[in-house]
Amino acid sequence: MSDGARQTNSRVQGSRIDPYFDQYAERARGMVASEIRALFAVTARPEIVSLAGGSPYVSALPLDAVGELVGKLVADHGATALQYCTAQGDVGLREKICDVMSLEGIRAHPDDVVVTVGSQQALDLITRIFIDPGDVILAEAPSYVGALGSFAAYQADVVHVPMDEDGLIPEALEQAIERVTASGRRIKFLYTVPNHHNPAGVTLSEERRPRILQICQSAGVLILEDNPYGLLGFDGEPLRALRADDAEGVVYLGSFSKTFASGVRVGWATAPPAIRDKLILAAESAVLCHPMFSQLAVREYFETQPWQEQIKAFRELYRQRRDAMLESLDAQLSDSCYWTVPAGGFYVWLRLPEGVHSKAMLPRAVSSRVAYVPGTGFYADGGGADHLRLSYCFPEPDRIREGVRRLASVIEAEIDLTATFGPIPPGHRTGAETPGPGDL
Amino acid sequence: MSDGARQTNSRVQGSRIDPYFDQYAERARGMVASEIRALFAVTARPEIVSLAGGSPYVSALPLDAVGELVGKLVADHGATALQYCTAQGDVGLREKICDVMSLEGIRAHPDDVVVTVGSQQALDLITRIFIDPGDVILAEAPSYVGALGSFAAYQADVVHVPMDEDGLIPEALEQAIERVTASGRRIKFLYTVPNHHNPAGVTLSEERRPRILQICQSAGVLILEDNPYGLLGFDGEPLRALRADDAEGVVYLGSFSKTFASGVRVGWATAPPAIRDKLILAAESAVLCHPMFSQLAVREYFETQPWQEQIKAFRELYRQRRDAMLESLDAQLSDSCYWTVPAGGFYVWLRLPEGVHSKAMLPRAVSSRVAYVPGTGFYADGGGADHLRLSYCFPEPDRIREGVRRLASVIEAEIDLTATFGPIPPGHRTGAETPGPGDL
Repeated sequence: MSDGARQTNSRVQGSRIDPYFDQYAERARGMVASEIRALFAVTARPEIVSLAGGSPYVSALPLDAVGELVGKLVADHGATALQYCTAQGDVGLREKICDVMSLEGIRAHPDDVVVTVGSQQALDLITRIFIDPGDVILAEAPSYVGALGSFAAYQADVVHVPMDEDGLIPEALEQAIERVTASGRRIKFLYTVPNHHNPAGVTLSEERRPRILQICQSAGVLILEDNPYGLLGFDGEPLRALRADDAEGVVYLGSFSKTFASGVRVGWATAPPAIRDKLILAAESAVLCHPMFSQLAVREYFETQPWQEQIKAFRELYRQRRDAMLESLDAQLSDSCYWTVPAGGFYVWLRLPEGVHSKAMLPRAVSSRVAYVPGTGFYADGGGADHLRLSYCFPEPDRIREGVRRLASVIEAEIDLTATFGPIPPGHRTGAETPGPGDL
Repeated sequence: MSDGARQTNSRVQGSRIDPYFDQYAERARGMVASEIRALFAVTARPEIVSLAGGSPYVSALPLDAVGELVGKLVADHGATALQYCTAQGDVGLREKICDVMSLEGIRAHPDDVVVTVGSQQALDLITRIFIDPGDVILAEAPSYVGALGSFAAYQADVVHVPMDEDGLIPEALEQAIERVTASGRRIKFLYTVPNHHNPAGVTLSEERRPRILQICQSAGVLILEDNPYGLLGFDGEPLRALRADDAEGVVYLGSFSKTFASGVRVGWATAPPAIRDKLILAAESAVLCHPMFSQLAVREYFETQPWQEQIKAFRELYRQRRDAMLESLDAQLSDSCYWTVPAGGFYVWLRLPEGVHSKAMLPRAVSSRVAYVPGTGFYADGGGADHLRLSYCFPEPDRIREGVRRLASVIEAEIDLTATFGPIPPGHRTGAETPGPGDL
């Protein structure tokens, strides 16, 4: 089709490169691939130690046993497992989900649960349901890049709320609510990852939880509690979920990506009835239904395998990797950097020395065969240049140590450069150039 | 949370039933469950012959062989199969997709393909990328209910274009384009199901295809070619896809739901490069990535099993069921109704006698233990009350015959009622009350 023909319908002229340039929806204008995507493609090479990705270490699963149960599932129940199901998801799986949530003090009924394609889809659908362009979402500073991606896709206005080592700061939340309300804008919800935060590595303290709930309740702000890492704490019992103490004011998002396997893409939302009903309709319009094949594989695994033991094994594995990372950081970078000490989950959040820019430094890090995620990906407002995220979930401990050694030399060289030439800004700094969740 | 508290933030008062009533996005206002949903739940009961659903007959698959390959896949390649993948999808699967499309004359590269959660997700994402509220989508009259659902979710304005036995009518398409353009509105794309249309059961004739392409090319209208049933024709070879003759002006949607299994939810979009790039970003923001587990199961099936033979077996099975339905219709309803004769696919589209309303009749049909989908579900403009859709894909031939017998008595009784009392309108007639795709 010629450009000329295309223009008959399009009122504005399309670009030569993209004939559809002027036909996209407003929300799609900002959808451009990030410049660091190409860089991340490189990090899959074996010579590079990637401390960037958040891939769980699924090889630790009993793959023979899982293979056997999945094979039997299809052979014996293929007529169901290979068929459509309802948009809400398989009821037996939703029962298992309630069992899993009960470990964090949640009493929910399978009717309250909607199965989603990873908790990413739950993020997308909740945003679809609530957000008109310009509506405000409160979110921790920093926040999970995948959530920020969904919020941007629906043109939300994200207002960040500071955290410290104990997670979201209640006073800062109150101030943010006051400020936004005073400006006449509408807050649709607070997005929070209370446990083993991605990327910050911190956990909302037990003491602060009732206070956060109370602030949101009295301001009439819905809470979106995103909790993929709650069962992956290294010390003691899982903390009580926010949803456990407020079934009406909290939508809880869970995922089997980290407690079982990311490749099945089974997540869920537990929501008050009215929101649950909207979620089901939105899910149906988005994907018709979740793959029944995946749902029943997860259900079968949780019904027949020692899943709590497996989660313990995962915890132990990730604890060792975290220790390897923290020890190396202590040995290599304690003079120049500051970092959080995660009590669970996958991530360490590292603050660079003054003047060192995490995105500007990334190409040099990749040249030195180590990768991380620049902090800018986790802010909707251009912040984060002085931070980076390190993941210890996937590489073996020796690789982690080697990666931190390489990173330390890169940072050292960067400090020297900065001392000589002053701070080095990256070529560009817009939000559109932050990585997508798939890069991570 | 009290209603009072919720009002502090919400400017308008929430309803007592749904405290979030006034917080939803504009697009979510119309998301309400249809009144006939409850009715469809009933149709799952074994005593009811459901001619409503479009579920493929997956029991015809070699379930033992599929179970074995899936089990082996996880046991031998679990580290990949249970892990995240890219948002575009597994490249090996995309190669198989190109093989499958080549049967319809399409020459595409795996780079052109994006794997989606069924073709429903492709519909959702294309609409997300192109539609601002009020933008026009041209769509056949009638159109697939799942597509209309996605279009409504993004507040598109659907303009229906008439069909006849040879599919979309070129002159009607030209007139619709002229009319919409003259009214100053923007047409974003033409949505069409050229083969074995759902629900109309007709196929766009070979002769009309170049004409439809040429009309859209000269008007600069993108074509969205949705083709789940193209390989399920009962006579001769598959027709050449529209995409085969226009790689730049057509986005092609395919699905393995009917050629393999609906429960894996593997569909795809084949798109020009610029649109493909947006699709990948939109897919990432929507679900991060498709379940790798499902993708590799499909890839393995198409790499190791005699899939073309299996499609032939499906065709033969569905042809027998179609014949059973057509014979019964001929025997029972030739005096009062008119219906299309599908040359493939799953559906017969039946026109009721004057004055009989398909939605008003449905509760009485369900009481008589037969179910169908009222035609109103397939129109965005309130049309379709004089039609209903019958599916022959799932029930065995004897059940189909029994179902048509029951339907014939219901229609007969309805004709008597109409003769006595005049046309019987349903209680309500808004679009929001049409069934969702999950009901079908």
